[in-house]
Formats: sequence, C-alpha cells, structure tokens
Amino acid sequence: MVGAQTLGDVGEFGFLDRILGRLPQGPEVLLGPGDDAAVLDLGGTRVVACTDVLVEGSHFRRDWSSAHDVGRKAVAVNVADVAAMGARPVAVLAGVAAPAELAVDWLTELAEGLRDEAASAGCSVVGGDTVAGPQVSVTVTALGLLDGPAVTRSGARAGDVVAVCGRLGHAAAGLAVLQRGFRSPRALVDVHRCPSPPYAAGPQAREAGASAMIDVSDGLLADLGHVCRASSVAIELDPDAVEVDPQLQAMARGLGVDARAWVYGGGEDHALAACFADDVTLPQGWARIGRVLDVAPDGSSEGLAVSVRGWQELPEGISATGGYQHFAR
Amino acid sequence: MVGAQTLGDVGEFGFLDRILGRLPQGPEVLLGPGDDAAVLDLGGTRVVACTDVLVEGSHFRRDWSSAHDVGRKAVAVNVADVAAMGARPVAVLAGVAAPAELAVDWLTELAEGLRDEAASAGCSVVGGDTVAGPQVSVTVTALGLLDGPAVTRSGARAGDVVAVCGRLGHAAAGLAVLQRGFRSPRALVDVHRCPSPPYAAGPQAREAGASAMIDVSDGLLADLGHVCRASSVAIELDPDAVEVDPQLQAMARGLGVDARAWVYGGGEDHALAACFADDVTLPQGWARIGRVLDVAPDGSSEGLAVSVRGWQELPEGISATGGYQHFAR
Repeated sequence: MVGAQTLGDVGEFGFLDRILGRLPQGPEVLLGPGDDAAVLDLGGTRVVACTDVLVEGSHFRRDWSSAHDVGRKAVAVNVADVAAMGARPVAVLAGVAAPAELAVDWLTELAEGLRDEAASAGCSVVGGDTVAGPQVSVTVTALGLLDGPAVTRSGARAGDVVAVCGRLGHAAAGLAVLQRGFRSPRALVDVHRCPSPPYAAGPQAREAGASAMIDVSDGLLADLGHVCRASSVAIELDPDAVEVDPQLQAMARGLGVDARAWVYGGGEDHALAACFADDVTLPQGWARIGRVLDVAPDGSSEGLAVSVRGWQELPEGISATGGYQHFAR
Repeated sequence: MVGAQTLGDVGEFGFLDRILGRLPQGPEVLLGPGDDAAVLDLGGTRVVACTDVLVEGSHFRRDWSSAHDVGRKAVAVNVADVAAMGARPVAVLAGVAAPAELAVDWLTELAEGLRDEAASAGCSVVGGDTVAGPQVSVTVTALGLLDGPAVTRSGARAGDVVAVCGRLGHAAAGLAVLQRGFRSPRALVDVHRCPSPPYAAGPQAREAGASAMIDVSDGLLADLGHVCRASSVAIELDPDAVEVDPQLQAMARGLGVDARAWVYGGGEDHALAACFADDVTLPQGWARIGRVLDVAPDGSSEGLAVSVRGWQELPEGISATGGYQHFAR
C-alpha cells in the first residue's frame, strides 16, 4: 500500500528524490537543491547556501561528545559543503532545540563550539534560534561567497583525474572505537567528534580549474557515485593511491575488521574529492586517487559507477552506498 | 548553584543574552545577532538572513495542523523576519527531522507547504536536509535582498508614530479555541495553523522611510518592548486605534476571557509593527496605533516601556512579556 510507505522504507535519498522535482526555482537561483549547496545570484554576487541537521542519538551522543564538539561539528559539516562548491565561507546561522532541563552551561559551550569552528573557517555566527524540544538538535545553515562559477557535481569529464584533500576513514574508525566502548586512540575518536574539513582547499580547487567537486560525507565510494550520476561518467580508483593510514590499519587489525571499509565506505570525515583535467597541477594538499572514464557501453548501474582497479567486487564490509543512510533499517 | 541552572530557569531570551556578546563578527557582517535578522554585505549586495525552529508539541501539533500547514507556517514565520528588516525574500532552506515511521506522504505534503508559502512570498526553496529524529521539527532559514539600509529595531525616535500592518490576536484566539477542543471558527484556527504575514509591507515601509520595524511574533506589547529597549525610547499605544476584531470579541465573550489579551499579548500573527516620522504618509495597509516618547526621566523599566493610554496598569490576563516564552515554566 503506497500511502502507508514510511520514511524508513524509502530512506533519506528516496524522500529527497521525490520532492526535489516539485520545487520551482526563481530567477535568482543559479543552482537549486541536489548538489552540496544551492547557488544564488544576489544582485550580481554569487552566494552559496546549504543546511544540515544534527540530531542527538543519530549524529552525536552527549556521553561521547562534549557540547563544544557538537557545536564545532554542526558548523564543520555545513561549511564543508560550502567549500565543496568552491566558495569561501562567510556566515552561519544555528537553530537549536533542547530540553528545558538541559544545563545552560551545556548550551553555552555549544555556542562556543559554533563560534570556534566558524572562526577557524573564517566566518561568523550571525543568527540563531533556541526552542524547547525533547532532544538536542542543531541545524546549521552556512553561507559562502563565490569569486567565479560554482564547482558542481556534474562537470566531471572522461579523462579527468580524481583527487582528494583531507582525511578518509578516520571518523568511521573513531565511531567504531566508541561503539566498542573505548575512548582511544584519541586522534581517531576526535575526528568522529568533530571533523576538520580542509575549508581552503575548496576555493583553491576551483581556482585550479576543478571540473567537479563533492564533500565526502557519506563515504568515498558513495560520494564519488553522486559525481558519476550527476556527470554521466564512471570513476576508477587506484587502490595504491588511496592512502590507508597505518594508524587505521593497526586499529582495524585489533578490532578484526578491514580498514578499507572505513576509508572507502566510511563517511563524516568531510574530505573534499574533486576532478581536474589531466594536465592540471593539483593544488597543495590534493592527492590523485583515480581517473574519470566514460560510462560503460552497457550503461553502468549505480553499484558499478565507481570501481577500484583490480577489485572484481567490493571486499566484504565495504559499502558502495555510504556508511550512513538516515532512516535506513 | 550557578552550574546547575537549566534552560527552563533562564528562558530563551536569558540564554540568548548570555551568548550573543560572545560572538565576534567578521567584516561582511553589517548587523549580527539580536534583531529580526542578520544583515550581510556580500560583494556589495545587502543580504538578510534569519533562522527559526518549529518543534512538534511546542509550535504545532500534528492532530491540529496538517503537514501542509506546518510547512507553510515554517516558511511564514521566517520570511516575516526578512520582511521586518525591509527586505525582499528570495530563498529559504529547510532542515527537517522526523521519525523513521512517519508516512512519506506527510513529509511530501510538508514540502508542498514549504513550496507554496515560499511561492506566495515570492521566493524559492533552494535546499534542505532530512534526518531521523524522535519528533518532527522543521528549521527554516530565509534569505532576502535589501535595496537600501536595513530597518532595525533601534532607529525609533521620540515623536515618531507607531503603526501596524497585519492581524493582531487572531493566532492566539485560534490557539485558545483549539486548546478548548473546538475546531472553529475556522478563520481563527487557520491563522494559528499558518499566519499570513504581510510580506510586501516590509519593503514598502522601508521605502516610506520607517525608522524601526519588528515582526510581531511574541505579542504586540512584548515586541514593541524590544523596539523600546533597542532604541532607548518609550511607546504609548492608543487603545482606540488598536483594533479588536469583532470576531475576536464575540469569541472571547463565549470563552469568558478578554479579547484584548490576544490582541496586546498574543504572538504568532506575524503582523509588522514599525515607527515612522510624524509627517510620513503611511503606506497602504498600515494603521497608526500609537506614538514614540522619550524614556521617562526616571528611566522606564521593561514593563513600563510600552504603555497604553488611559490604562494605569495592564488588565488581568494581558502579558507585556509575550504570550509565548520557550522554556518558561
């Protein structure tokens, strides 16, 4: 029965797909919903805007993360989306719901976390709202400025190189550590608590001529899959070029898992992945990890759009669709 | 014990007061937190931005409001803040948390409500995020464009007239009706479900030279009190000029209450209130309701900043601090 379908049945992407086509866009909208951020033409200025919701229990736990961590993470995940369009972050706004019995000190620390991560990204907290709710949730909207055209998900061309800037797999490893009841290694746990996206790398990639860019929030394979679908291309990754940090390998051995599951399938590090013409000198901090191919003549399916050279199929435990699907059961 | 203070103890305004002074503002910020919306200078364009959170149980009930109502209201309360700065609304973004077991149809209707109210305000839904959460909450961020300086809360001068555009008391009356278990009169209940702010009146007031403006979301007395404190003035209202709709009077008689409590103290109608120099011809739709005075030489307290001519004290049941304080116990 169609009418009884729930969000849990269709998942987050299924729901967004349903509604995005129904939203008409006015003349100021250069790019509407569906990319990392929207792009507006406001009086001749290109402005980038995006919003993300963090909910206690789904995105953070108050026993695992401090209020300051939560504030920083809420800004980081949003500003990373601004950077992924090639824009310079300018301002954030925060909407907070919290139980009336929550200590004021916790919310003050949250606000300080918002402020500190905004400062590290070069932007200001310009507004907010605080309301009563049964559970802590933080919704941040980030605004950025573009000095030229946005770098979308849809500009990748066969022959481009694929490159990444920032950490991969650390946040997923940190979450795995916490889920097993440990609090260390601190370096990994801290990345789960608050990622450190390479904000400046986004505008630098745009200036270097990046053809497509995305924020790695769902997992490397999943997010490059979004680029493939938007650009009608395929991507082949070079497993020798995708770095698996020795610290992750050691931790994975200890937990009896495959560290590649975190690196290829884990989300929430908020690295940036981008495509560049083959002759571009990559900006500092970017590392080549693969190449863009034409879609296979038989029409690659979603699962095949991103492949890893030499892997006939994905090793067990590695997700091609994202380490983190809201509502998925 | 200071460390154990909760949000419920200090209330929403108390909490915001604590943190607003701690947020440094970058060079693009013309006006930071504390007014109806922030004002940014983005490449020479003045952009207005604000955010509001609606939480099920606090701001709407799914048995009282349809999903379409909730979507419309979430946009209306935000875009009214944009209009209250004298800006033209351009775009909204929506962050939605919802239980996985919620019917997809409900959220689709919510999105249609967001879209329809955005369209009626002349703006587009350009982005969003949907995540799992225990309860439905909708956080909307609205962006607007200014053709000149923003109209803030702080520009009122002694001698100005005070005027209002839009309904007063209808949303509070509608809520009172619903709380008593009735569903009619429909006209009042519908205003609680979704207000109809006079969006165009904001830019019109700015063009006419309004010295100060605010969105009436907390109640007429409470919101004019914000103007008084920001502008260091007092305001005296003319009770003969503040219209109490006969429909409200009839309903109040039936319920055994004073309709003026809704008109002077009730929030959520999202009318606009503004101050104008005495010689200004008010734009169409605006009605003069009072005048701006110097602060009394003895320094008026918050409760006295807004007075009503001929009232020695507020009649029982009329709140000077807002019909709706989040976290207030």
